[in-house]
Amino acid sequence: MDTRAAVAFKAGEPLEIATVSLEGPREGEVLVEIKATGICHTDEFTRSGEDPEGIFPAILGHEGAGVVVDIGPGVTSVKKGDHVIPLYTPECRECPSCLSQKTNLCTAIRSTQGQGLMPDGTSRFSLDGQPIHHYMGCSTFSNFTVLPEIAVAKVREDAPFDKICYIGCGVTTGIGAVVNTANVEPGSTAVVFGLGGIGLNVIQGLRMVGADMIIGVDINDSKKSMAEQFGMTHFVNPKEIGEDIVPYLVNLTKRRGDQIGGADYTFDCTGNVTVMRQALECAHRGWGQSIVIGVAPAGAEIATRPFQLVTGRVWKGTAFGGARGRTDVPKIVDWYMDGKIDIDSLITHTMPLEDINKGFDLMHKGESIRSVVLY
Amino acid sequence: MDTRAAVAFKAGEPLEIATVSLEGPREGEVLVEIKATGICHTDEFTRSGEDPEGIFPAILGHEGAGVVVDIGPGVTSVKKGDHVIPLYTPECRECPSCLSQKTNLCTAIRSTQGQGLMPDGTSRFSLDGQPIHHYMGCSTFSNFTVLPEIAVAKVREDAPFDKICYIGCGVTTGIGAVVNTANVEPGSTAVVFGLGGIGLNVIQGLRMVGADMIIGVDINDSKKSMAEQFGMTHFVNPKEIGEDIVPYLVNLTKRRGDQIGGADYTFDCTGNVTVMRQALECAHRGWGQSIVIGVAPAGAEIATRPFQLVTGRVWKGTAFGGARGRTDVPKIVDWYMDGKIDIDSLITHTMPLEDINKGFDLMHKGESIRSVVLY
Repeated sequence: MDTRAAVAFKAGEPLEIATVSLEGPREGEVLVEIKATGICHTDEFTRSGEDPEGIFPAILGHEGAGVVVDIGPGVTSVKKGDHVIPLYTPECRECPSCLSQKTNLCTAIRSTQGQGLMPDGTSRFSLDGQPIHHYMGCSTFSNFTVLPEIAVAKVREDAPFDKICYIGCGVTTGIGAVVNTANVEPGSTAVVFGLGGIGLNVIQGLRMVGADMIIGVDINDSKKSMAEQFGMTHFVNPKEIGEDIVPYLVNLTKRRGDQIGGADYTFDCTGNVTVMRQALECAHRGWGQSIVIGVAPAGAEIATRPFQLVTGRVWKGTAFGGARGRTDVPKIVDWYMDGKIDIDSLITHTMPLEDINKGFDLMHKGESIRSVVLY
Repeated sequence: MDTRAAVAFKAGEPLEIATVSLEGPREGEVLVEIKATGICHTDEFTRSGEDPEGIFPAILGHEGAGVVVDIGPGVTSVKKGDHVIPLYTPECRECPSCLSQKTNLCTAIRSTQGQGLMPDGTSRFSLDGQPIHHYMGCSTFSNFTVLPEIAVAKVREDAPFDKICYIGCGVTTGIGAVVNTANVEPGSTAVVFGLGGIGLNVIQGLRMVGADMIIGVDINDSKKSMAEQFGMTHFVNPKEIGEDIVPYLVNLTKRRGDQIGGADYTFDCTGNVTVMRQALECAHRGWGQSIVIGVAPAGAEIATRPFQLVTGRVWKGTAFGGARGRTDVPKIVDWYMDGKIDIDSLITHTMPLEDINKGFDLMHKGESIRSVVLY
């Protein structure tokens, strides 16, 4: 079949809208009509050429929602008509990682996905007979796409595509970091570095689980009001405090009777390795956990004195919020439909596929939280 | 009263045996007759002058065992005649850290202990009217010493002092890192870097909890046979493998059907920050935990790419093996008495107090695992 798609032909160039060929689903695969897709920083990381593992030409996009329109042989877990969210982190429930019950990082199709290919080592997309690569196993910048069955989460049918597409990446990453990776308990104190889309989702995750003190840190004062709307209780602009941010935050998080201070949980949503260190070091002695969410530039390193760990701080990271996609994504859709979390306010712009490059422009200018393409 | 003690008068000089004055226990304090004390690298770190927080003159030693011979007003948890192990990490059960139930790093007397003083801000030791500092709240290089009630663990009376003194630091640090900090489960794979006393105790902790694969790493082949005796299943000498140790260990720890490899748990017992990084990076993607036990030189930093954390590795540290002293130390004494762990083989030398400097010499030469002073 033919499908309209935004194609990344070359690193650093704008996407081009084209009609490409799409083969139908093979064994264990499903054909999905994408109804909406978010535009994420990770797409831009690859489009720009910064991603050392980027492959071109490719159809980017990994934050979508849509409907199953065909299934290949052997598919049992979804059927035509099911509403689904594509998963760039699949959940096979059979590989050593899934069976470990300790991680969401399913390895069933890891190597082919990294090569921009389907699990059988080929691509379903082509243009003029030349293959076009898949991206993160999703390629949601195509109106129709093919995915392995293990890489779609079936979700309720009353949930709006133009909102729940964001659960395909940003929402789950932020909220999952709180509920899966950090496992934050009610009454906790937390610091969130970076109040972009991920930071706001971390904040509303913290609110949902009953954190007491939710400190947002950003060098841009304009982020404050939205963050407050999502549950932030204290705002700190490092440029406006006249001292090192670490002792300032340690002091701010002192509980009654506590001589030490430091947050129970801290989250880096900046990708800046200096901030990652600050996030670790303002975690509470003895038990504070710091979660790296942001993606650092290639080659950048984090550092600290080992004393920080020996005295009880824990340094962790999270990918896709530690969520097992097929199991956890439908729950997050429920949380949205039940009003426990807000997605609507985060989707600041929508556009047709033809205008997708405008979405990237808005991201560059910092004018959007999330732009969503509607097919 | 008077007591014999080995006094560190000045950084970098040998200890001097002297008869010093010791005031009796005040409110909440106990007088303990030390029967045996180990000589630990931490004592040497301070004696040598390397410890930037070292205070002189002081009576070092923090790995002892003895008998309560007097108690001050208000003491309720121990009585005269009780056998105890002094605790450099106390357990007050009332401070925010103890009440958090998330850490063993009790803060009740932290500031005075760091200043070499009892909780009321004074010292019980003096010589010719000049105060001598306490050390790590213990000062077990004195035949008699005064400790806060919250800093002694009451232990069974049939346990030999000359062996269980080692539980006051090294044994608990190594075994506790396994059972408290890492919480290793049966069937795990583990890598232990550094096969000195701490490494051997980590290894026997791993054996006790049923780890499947216990890999020891050391640049000295002579460590192999003792480590095997303690439960090591594989030995790796980094000097003898012709490649980077990280991929080598990742490959060695691949389980059947696992395409990735890496250990479930890794432990640094070297204090070398380069090794700490290797320990993190050979932990399994998705869930591997790396525990820093070794003490790094002042100012040294650990580093890695944040990608290591984002893909699921966890970087932690441990102090006193995460053990709550009054609660956990008596259990470890039981484990020794029940034959679950071996201490006897680790105590390679004993000596009277007069020969304590010989114990430091043996440590320097690498000829001892643990030297114990018998009073």
